[in-house]
Amino acid sequence: MSKNQNDYLNNLRHTAAHLLAKSVKELYPGAKNAIGPAIEHGFYQDFDMGKYKISDEDLPKIEQRMRENLPSWTHFVFNEITLSEARKLFKDNPYKVEMAEEFAKGGKKLLTNDPGNFLDLCKMGHVENPSKELNHFRLLKVAGAYWRGNEKNKMLTRIYGTAFPTKEALDKYVWQQEEALKRDHKKIGHEQELFIISDEVGPGLPIFLPQGAILRHIIEEYIRREKEKRNYQFVWTPHIARSKLYMKSGHWKKYDAMFNPMKLDDEEYVPKAMNCPHHFQVYLSKPRSYRDLPLRVAENGTVYRYEKSGVLNGLFRVRCLTIDDTHTFVRHDQIGEEYENVLVLIKDIMSDFGFNKYKMRVSLRDEKHKGKYMGNEKLWNKAEDAIKTVAENSGIEWYEGPGEAAFYGPKLDLMFEDALGREWQCATAQLDFVQPENFDMHYTDENGKLVRPAILHIAILGSVERFMGIIIEQFGGKFPVWLAPTQLKIIPIADRHKEFAAKIYKITSQNSIRTELDDRNETMQAKIRDATLQKVPYMGIIGDKEMEKSGIDKPEGMFLSVRSRDGKNLGQIDVAQLINKLKVEIEKKI
Amino acid sequence: MSKNQNDYLNNLRHTAAHLLAKSVKELYPGAKNAIGPAIEHGFYQDFDMGKYKISDEDLPKIEQRMRENLPSWTHFVFNEITLSEARKLFKDNPYKVEMAEEFAKGGKKLLTNDPGNFLDLCKMGHVENPSKELNHFRLLKVAGAYWRGNEKNKMLTRIYGTAFPTKEALDKYVWQQEEALKRDHKKIGHEQELFIISDEVGPGLPIFLPQGAILRHIIEEYIRREKEKRNYQFVWTPHIARSKLYMKSGHWKKYDAMFNPMKLDDEEYVPKAMNCPHHFQVYLSKPRSYRDLPLRVAENGTVYRYEKSGVLNGLFRVRCLTIDDTHTFVRHDQIGEEYENVLVLIKDIMSDFGFNKYKMRVSLRDEKHKGKYMGNEKLWNKAEDAIKTVAENSGIEWYEGPGEAAFYGPKLDLMFEDALGREWQCATAQLDFVQPENFDMHYTDENGKLVRPAILHIAILGSVERFMGIIIEQFGGKFPVWLAPTQLKIIPIADRHKEFAAKIYKITSQNSIRTELDDRNETMQAKIRDATLQKVPYMGIIGDKEMEKSGIDKPEGMFLSVRSRDGKNLGQIDVAQLINKLKVEIEKKI
Repeated sequence: MSKNQNDYLNNLRHTAAHLLAKSVKELYPGAKNAIGPAIEHGFYQDFDMGKYKISDEDLPKIEQRMRENLPSWTHFVFNEITLSEARKLFKDNPYKVEMAEEFAKGGKKLLTNDPGNFLDLCKMGHVENPSKELNHFRLLKVAGAYWRGNEKNKMLTRIYGTAFPTKEALDKYVWQQEEALKRDHKKIGHEQELFIISDEVGPGLPIFLPQGAILRHIIEEYIRREKEKRNYQFVWTPHIARSKLYMKSGHWKKYDAMFNPMKLDDEEYVPKAMNCPHHFQVYLSKPRSYRDLPLRVAENGTVYRYEKSGVLNGLFRVRCLTIDDTHTFVRHDQIGEEYENVLVLIKDIMSDFGFNKYKMRVSLRDEKHKGKYMGNEKLWNKAEDAIKTVAENSGIEWYEGPGEAAFYGPKLDLMFEDALGREWQCATAQLDFVQPENFDMHYTDENGKLVRPAILHIAILGSVERFMGIIIEQFGGKFPVWLAPTQLKIIPIADRHKEFAAKIYKITSQNSIRTELDDRNETMQAKIRDATLQKVPYMGIIGDKEMEKSGIDKPEGMFLSVRSRDGKNLGQIDVAQLINKLKVEIEKKI
Repeated sequence: MSKNQNDYLNNLRHTAAHLLAKSVKELYPGAKNAIGPAIEHGFYQDFDMGKYKISDEDLPKIEQRMRENLPSWTHFVFNEITLSEARKLFKDNPYKVEMAEEFAKGGKKLLTNDPGNFLDLCKMGHVENPSKELNHFRLLKVAGAYWRGNEKNKMLTRIYGTAFPTKEALDKYVWQQEEALKRDHKKIGHEQELFIISDEVGPGLPIFLPQGAILRHIIEEYIRREKEKRNYQFVWTPHIARSKLYMKSGHWKKYDAMFNPMKLDDEEYVPKAMNCPHHFQVYLSKPRSYRDLPLRVAENGTVYRYEKSGVLNGLFRVRCLTIDDTHTFVRHDQIGEEYENVLVLIKDIMSDFGFNKYKMRVSLRDEKHKGKYMGNEKLWNKAEDAIKTVAENSGIEWYEGPGEAAFYGPKLDLMFEDALGREWQCATAQLDFVQPENFDMHYTDENGKLVRPAILHIAILGSVERFMGIIIEQFGGKFPVWLAPTQLKIIPIADRHKEFAAKIYKITSQNSIRTELDDRNETMQAKIRDATLQKVPYMGIIGDKEMEKSGIDKPEGMFLSVRSRDGKNLGQIDVAQLINKLKVEIEKKI
């Protein structure tokens, strides 16, 4: 979204917050409005509700009043006032007075606005004519929030809402929200027993239960195979290191999510927050020649990053994450070609997970805070120029992201759109001229001269944990067969079918189909219902008919009735056919 | 080895140390002997060499003198003496005087012995007639050692040696030592670029280079497949947890290799030294029924254990190790059967790595230090009885190991003999009634009653890192094809053969043969030499003859000359045949 579009959206939503304030004050006499900003995806407005208590159930009534008020909101009238005027005007609203005092102290103008006969103190940023522009809004939920976010202050009532320029955009957003709620990876993670967060182990430290551990193993092994095919070399590195290592790499000072260190033999060690300096040791383990490059050092490496407990969120924000990392050491003349290869690899991999729409952000330095970065101006300019050239030649839609660079170099970040139209930054490919200096890396060129390599830091899924959260929501838990932790559930109807079912279970398992046998003493209906809830792609039901049809104990002579998790009946199929069908779907990743 | 055998061996070696002392003092007048104990695999004797300096080159001469002295050592004469007599007798040897004073202070008898006219102060423990019994000894090396191991004291000269009752036993030991030196996993690890220990990352924290990382991945995936076939369920757990978790499990107090904690949000976290309490969370994640058991929770989980820097040794002793762990939750009536299954699994897996000779140690409490253990007497007696019954029924040769139990329960430890006849403790299967109490675990039995499960803690390889060290030495780096990081090296002779070689490389790689293409501009001889040093099982050489013989670009029409790392010429083989040959060897694990 362009900056102008974004500004307009913020203005629209900020205007909606004013309208909400007016309407609530009318419906609940004595309610006082505090702040009401635009936020990502919408806006909120805080209220001191006085003697009233409201809940989500009151939102339709408030929304109705907003619609009634809207036609009179044809334009804003702005007035600059003095602090003493403000104190008088808002004498019943201590929140507004506090803000006015703060504005005045900071040397800011005190402005009031007055659309549709509603006076409010304001920082500006509205649409011209709300009555025409603000037709597509929705109130979303009621929550509590401390005044100024400080728990020592009074708890206020916060109403969240959103607004869009068009009905289509609002409807899409509302659908996205509802669908996201249904697909919430924490909910599905619980239902399908994929992972837990145990309070005894600690927040942000997910434990993957058997079904979730299979899923992560499939993903990690898939990444490994795809990379190995392309001459990536996997290594294995420990999860801790001397703190000194990160001082040398600069992470200690420049990267703020490092864990606190622990003492060991009068030295300090720390869990790794990045795999980079570990992979540098691999490069440095022997002399390198120009013929050895590109050297692609890869690892699905688990790192530990400190995130505040308040922002932890299922698998999306964790303290323990596994990066599908690569550090590719290249000659400077190989940068362009290696980037081309990497972009193709990213596209191929993401497409296998159903992500086909993406944009690219060229993440550059924050020109105003150059102290945040390591390395000299010349190296940075060279790296930023090189990466812009790559972006330009890639044919992918791209835009600049100032201030989004890593501390050691600029990045290409790929933003993928999921099935709900939400955007996720997954893949990143960073260009680094700085760490080769920090670690004094070199190779011998054709003329026997020592030369510094450049490093591409590449992650495709990003954090495997977060990516699992994303694909759980992408597929709503209905994983394609190649990803489904359980691909086939065998359901014998009665006791007399169990032995035969166990034989089929053995055959499909031996043929690498992830099969479960449900031989509980439950009814067929209950078993089908459970497998459907678990979203197992296929169920194979075995009763008298199937056993009668079956002959010899060989896959092509053993029948079961197959149905899909969507309730589709595929009829009686022999085991050989079924295995074949599943293998084709696994191979095609459908 | 029985206790009596062990005592005899110690006496023999202690006697040899005396003989060494006499001989050195004769050869180097003024040399003073300090202590000279029997140790595992031999003995040593410390000397203050006065004005002399000796090295390994002097050992044959000293050994010769020992052989000359031996015939007169027909028996020992022992005399009890007083401290003042000792001071007089050993007035030229301050080390003996210091020991005599210490013995006297501790109320111990002061004894001198006098075999073959050599007077020494001694703690006792000798063979009856050295001239007959001490014929099979060998001096091994010269080293430095501080008097009493204290670096503030004088540095003495230590001579190591060994002695055995028979020539065969001595020869075997010497061969073992020489062979072990050739097969040293640190040496091979370096030659084959399997792993490094980087000082920047830290001691005891190995980094696995591409070839070593392939090996560990093969091993870990093999373990996973073997366990999955037997309904083990793999999970994934983070490498850190709240320190409190280990207080609850008892590790905090009872297990002394925990790392020091780190601060996080005013709490303490610590790297896990054990996977157990993490796996308990999986059990506890939902209510369990008697039908759910046995529940086998498995993980190749990396743990962090503090070992003193002085004992770190390649991959054998590290601070970062990956346990092929299982925690199997069973009903008490399932203990016997589950142990049977586990013992079969251990046997199968170890046999695939060429380990077929083993004994079993039943590791019990140290009756004298019961405070080291958690849990009440009744539970311990029950567990020890149960595990002895399992051992008795197993048909495996077993012996008791008092004091070798885990703090929460007794163990079965399997001791395997390697290709050099050395014994390694790898697999362990521990029986635990205590942790189910600590973590308040239960399941619902047939009658709806809540009952505690028991836990089997099982590791088969033990530490994957250590096991890699063991098999590097087991195979002397000549891994069987299924384990070899590179299985096939393609060697084009000249530039004109490179394109064809690359085609073959592509075909074998696509057929899951781990292939490398050596297309450097080196001679064929140099390439063969390098691949032989790397111990790659097979080399496929491509020159004019092979290309002439080849027809269509299909595996069955493309020829190469194949030779093994042992220099065996397998002649011209087509690619299809070669792939087939390798697949058979991989399948058969030969």
